[in-house]
Amino acid sequence: MRVGVLTGGGDCPGLNAVIRGVVRKGVQEYGYDFVGFRDGWRGPLEGDTVQLDIPAVRGILPRGGTILGSSRTNPLKQENGIRRIKENLAKEEVDALIAIGGEDTLGVAARLADEYGVRVVGVPKTIDNDLSATDYTFGFDTAVNIATEAIDRLHTTAESHMRVLVVEVMGRHAGWIALHAGLAGGANVILIPEQRFEVDRVCAWVTSRFKASYAPIVVVAEGAMPRDGDMVLKDGSLDSFGHVRLSGVGEWLAKEIERRTGKEARTTVLGHVQRGGTPSAFDRWLATRFGLHAIEAVRDGDFGKMVALRGTDVVRVPIAEATARLKTVDPALYDEVGVFFG
Amino acid sequence: MRVGVLTGGGDCPGLNAVIRGVVRKGVQEYGYDFVGFRDGWRGPLEGDTVQLDIPAVRGILPRGGTILGSSRTNPLKQENGIRRIKENLAKEEVDALIAIGGEDTLGVAARLADEYGVRVVGVPKTIDNDLSATDYTFGFDTAVNIATEAIDRLHTTAESHMRVLVVEVMGRHAGWIALHAGLAGGANVILIPEQRFEVDRVCAWVTSRFKASYAPIVVVAEGAMPRDGDMVLKDGSLDSFGHVRLSGVGEWLAKEIERRTGKEARTTVLGHVQRGGTPSAFDRWLATRFGLHAIEAVRDGDFGKMVALRGTDVVRVPIAEATARLKTVDPALYDEVGVFFG
Amino acid sequence: MRVGVLTGGGDCPGLNAVIRGVVRKGVQEYGYDFVGFRDGWRGPLEGDTVQLDIPAVRGILPRGGTILGSSRTNPLKQENGIRRIKENLAKEEVDALIAIGGEDTLGVAARLADEYGVRVVGVPKTIDNDLSATDYTFGFDTAVNIATEAIDRLHTTAESHMRVLVVEVMGRHAGWIALHAGLAGGANVILIPEQRFEVDRVCAWVTSRFKASYAPIVVVAEGAMPRDGDMVLKDGSLDSFGHVRLSGVGEWLAKEIERRTGKEARTTVLGHVQRGGTPSAFDRWLATRFGLHAIEAVRDGDFGKMVALRGTDVVRVPIAEATARLKTVDPALYDEVGVFFG
Amino acid sequence: MRVGVLTGGGDCPGLNAVIRGVVRKGVQEYGYDFVGFRDGWRGPLEGDTVQLDIPAVRGILPRGGTILGSSRTNPLKQENGIRRIKENLAKEEVDALIAIGGEDTLGVAARLADEYGVRVVGVPKTIDNDLSATDYTFGFDTAVNIATEAIDRLHTTAESHMRVLVVEVMGRHAGWIALHAGLAGGANVILIPEQRFEVDRVCAWVTSRFKASYAPIVVVAEGAMPRDGDMVLKDGSLDSFGHVRLSGVGEWLAKEIERRTGKEARTTVLGHVQRGGTPSAFDRWLATRFGLHAIEAVRDGDFGKMVALRGTDVVRVPIAEATARLKTVDPALYDEVGVFFG
Repeated sequence: MRVGVLTGGGDCPGLNAVIRGVVRKGVQEYGYDFVGFRDGWRGPLEGDTVQLDIPAVRGILPRGGTILGSSRTNPLKQENGIRRIKENLAKEEVDALIAIGGEDTLGVAARLADEYGVRVVGVPKTIDNDLSATDYTFGFDTAVNIATEAIDRLHTTAESHMRVLVVEVMGRHAGWIALHAGLAGGANVILIPEQRFEVDRVCAWVTSRFKASYAPIVVVAEGAMPRDGDMVLKDGSLDSFGHVRLSGVGEWLAKEIERRTGKEARTTVLGHVQRGGTPSAFDRWLATRFGLHAIEAVRDGDFGKMVALRGTDVVRVPIAEATARLKTVDPALYDEVGVFFG
Repeated sequence: MRVGVLTGGGDCPGLNAVIRGVVRKGVQEYGYDFVGFRDGWRGPLEGDTVQLDIPAVRGILPRGGTILGSSRTNPLKQENGIRRIKENLAKEEVDALIAIGGEDTLGVAARLADEYGVRVVGVPKTIDNDLSATDYTFGFDTAVNIATEAIDRLHTTAESHMRVLVVEVMGRHAGWIALHAGLAGGANVILIPEQRFEVDRVCAWVTSRFKASYAPIVVVAEGAMPRDGDMVLKDGSLDSFGHVRLSGVGEWLAKEIERRTGKEARTTVLGHVQRGGTPSAFDRWLATRFGLHAIEAVRDGDFGKMVALRGTDVVRVPIAEATARLKTVDPALYDEVGVFFG
Repeated sequence: MRVGVLTGGGDCPGLNAVIRGVVRKGVQEYGYDFVGFRDGWRGPLEGDTVQLDIPAVRGILPRGGTILGSSRTNPLKQENGIRRIKENLAKEEVDALIAIGGEDTLGVAARLADEYGVRVVGVPKTIDNDLSATDYTFGFDTAVNIATEAIDRLHTTAESHMRVLVVEVMGRHAGWIALHAGLAGGANVILIPEQRFEVDRVCAWVTSRFKASYAPIVVVAEGAMPRDGDMVLKDGSLDSFGHVRLSGVGEWLAKEIERRTGKEARTTVLGHVQRGGTPSAFDRWLATRFGLHAIEAVRDGDFGKMVALRGTDVVRVPIAEATARLKTVDPALYDEVGVFFG
Repeated sequence: MRVGVLTGGGDCPGLNAVIRGVVRKGVQEYGYDFVGFRDGWRGPLEGDTVQLDIPAVRGILPRGGTILGSSRTNPLKQENGIRRIKENLAKEEVDALIAIGGEDTLGVAARLADEYGVRVVGVPKTIDNDLSATDYTFGFDTAVNIATEAIDRLHTTAESHMRVLVVEVMGRHAGWIALHAGLAGGANVILIPEQRFEVDRVCAWVTSRFKASYAPIVVVAEGAMPRDGDMVLKDGSLDSFGHVRLSGVGEWLAKEIERRTGKEARTTVLGHVQRGGTPSAFDRWLATRFGLHAIEAVRDGDFGKMVALRGTDVVRVPIAEATARLKTVDPALYDEVGVFFG
């Protein structure tokens, strides 16, 4: 048995742990051969491969990024994309493919499996934790820890100068990082894409915090939007969800808060720092287990499936079903956390 | 409604986050009053209290330890213990009690609830993650992260000197910390209390690692024991499980490895560093949600229950049932991880 | 003897350690009394004080920010500022004042000492490390560590996507943070305010890095400026040094790199995260020793002086002399580090 | 010009940064060739080499340990040791040797240079910071940060249980790590090898701390010894300084404190965790600069010298002189810090 492995989409702490888990178990327990494809779907599309064996995965567990490289190449949008992939898989004598990626990567995997009979097993990956069918995705815990440490640090600078500090974190369509890091960091306001916010209400929370002689921290997901729609956007294009593509909500909000409350406000945009570097222990554990279970699915011939976390168990679910809808923050959960606002 | 709160047993990162969650929601949403009892069951036993209100819980979220203090005092073993507790609760006009603790603390809570009609809600706490009925307990993730970082550091010193490094982590009866940190840290051997180990097999793994020109890391839970029973113990007393109380398995094992393989071996005992200090983001999230749900259970009059994590939901289970048996590492899970040994 | 203490300017990890050092030694060894002034020079200007004794400094060593608050209030620019300060010092029966701050705060201190006979001892503070007369200022090491950790994380995301990552760090007039963090983080280009950069040369380094199959990290101090002067500035105002106030050099540079090299580039602006939170061990050590030596200078009646680090010794230098010129990066040192560019 | 490089003695964060600095500058600026010798003096003794060029030093800056391996092999104690080294250097056509190491490694280097005309440049390395002639050695700052973080964590567990926590840190002959980490961590007692301690005085400090309702942290260097000489030693052998080899002073002291004060005491021995893993930003900076200056000394033909830090400058000093005496903690500095005891 010869198994191909690829990683697609934005990078995410834990990708290397998955690869290592797949290869260690595949070689040692099942005697499989492996081939790595470079840069997501670009690899099988162009026949660009890299050696993947036990020495190749030595020492990669604590390293961020992916030794296979990544890209957002979508073969469904390329001429003869599917045919070229099937040809290159045949040329490499690949019997099965493990595709590690987010919604886009797995969407391709699902179509390859369902419509073209390619033997694919999926491993879900999204720093944003917004993939349904799995309790958590690896990378998310690392991002939340990094954002929480940043918020911890910003508290002291906010208090010393009695300023508002607005922290923009990742999360274009779902507010998981904002919600978890905001709660863990003791933020006074948390704004998420799932619920349009009212700037006046944010200002009321900010003001009440100052009245208690403390300085407020506002955590805002990059995809959060004001209800009143008066936000000046950097870029008016629509994204794949029909939403206006937002960048800069943090900076915009800080200026609005200054204007409406008369208090100094500063913005920190955490950006790519959230998705790089060594994974947290939880993410190493989860990613490794995903890898071990993915190769087990290959061994069982259980294709068209994706591994997923349910409680403390790793299970298998149909890829297509798993990517069908975005996992967003439940309003009840957001309300639960709202007791800490203001 | 006036609610008492206490924290018992060994300290654990996240205790303060629970207390803060309880008080913030209790005061702001339900208008409750609170009283803190000092040092676990010693507080209600001796009527030793501390003010507990919104100002008292400001800024405690990121702090380790517990602002209420803790102890291992067991009122069931004290003369008239139960009567004195009931009297002091009455004197303080406490309508309900939230007991945050591990097996012992919750065991008392269960009996108070079931046999003496005390209105108690429990919050599970164990750094060891060995309490059944909940997927995870807070504090565990922090401990695993600390142990993993230590193992990361030890790799480089092992490699530079081609030595065996034995890391002893917490876990007297369950190997969860050893298993998670060992996997996340890329250990070459993981030894847990649930499965007696063979020293010769450990030595074989160590030797095979050296053959591949790498230096081995052995992670051993403090409660792990050799199968062959030739361990020289520091202390021969039996613990409550009828096991011999072990301290020093790490040091003992390092000497055995040296003796049998001829390789240099060193021991690191992480000790109390694993249970102190600021909680990880996951533990702050979990502990806070446990606090919010515990006070909700009080509001609902749902006494004799304990909050618990199931997947991503916080649920309620009978305290007595939850503490009935130790949650140990499933042999199948240990086998799954075994692919990384050697 | 009654001693006033104030902290002025931007906050900086280690301020609390200084205060604790001053008070612990002042009370325990010399039997002095203390009074804290709130928010830098605003405190003595308005007579706004806070109790400062042993209990007030308990537990503050590891905490960022300043328990005394800070501001950029300049009494020299206030009507009757000096007179009001002298009156309030007299009213509080303050015999000596310890002023902890940067160039502005110490500039006021120097004039108060030299022209008005106020008995002042200075403690230098600048996150930017750009104060002459001292080898290092506290806060700098913490900022460098935070920036280095961020760069470590960005490497993996740069490599995975073969992108340029531009990291903007603090340093308006001096490039110390950029130089130290850039070197420690393994950056491929470091740009500092002391030397105007050529965008084409930056692009050449970036391109050569890609040719070696690695992705480049560019660290740029917020005050760095291009030689060719074609930078579109957010804000055209001149600062106190007659320089154009720059914000956004990082974002501007990323766009130029994209335009000129055709490679994707992303920016991370670390911002206030660099100056908040718990101090590094080095900064706690340095800040504490500055505190101990400042109160010793008071005891010796050695006013108009500032404590300073020289090698491993803490010495005293005239405040006025110490703030006379900015300590910038020596061209020879910048050249030394240049071997790692490209 | 062909330059050999070796690393000897205990490993230390920053070794790889030195090697990278040497090679990057040597190749790029001077066009030199390099050869690595494995495992300290064992390499040139046995002719065991490893390729050392630009690709070999890619990515090693943030990594602990040493890519060259290390050992404590002393060629002066081997038959024909010097002759074999000279032969192997000749065979490898090595024109100059850079020896990175501590007292022992540099002692050999000094003799090779002085007595046998070998062209050697030294780079000082000791985690303990006890080498005279340099303000700091790399690795020390990392060790102090790790120990400080551990002490930070232990505070909360000490407070929660009102226990004494004894932390044993590295430092056999000099108390630098204990002094710096103890001060930075807010320890209540710091015990160093330079000053024999009185157990009763330690107990008095411990008791006074409890009286103030706080729990004490005692930091003790592994080489600290009681004045009263009643310590039961694990091992009675004499070390090279004629001192009794101590291990276990932490555990011994905890038991004495329990016995004399009646308070519970626990010990944490940090051990090898202090010397492994990624270097702090300061250590990466210092180690890199040492590397750059060492190869510059080779270029200048300035052999028999060692690089050293003086203030912020890197200078050269005769190796022999530099290792002539141990740099111990000055009693005045210890007294200065003593204000925080108790």
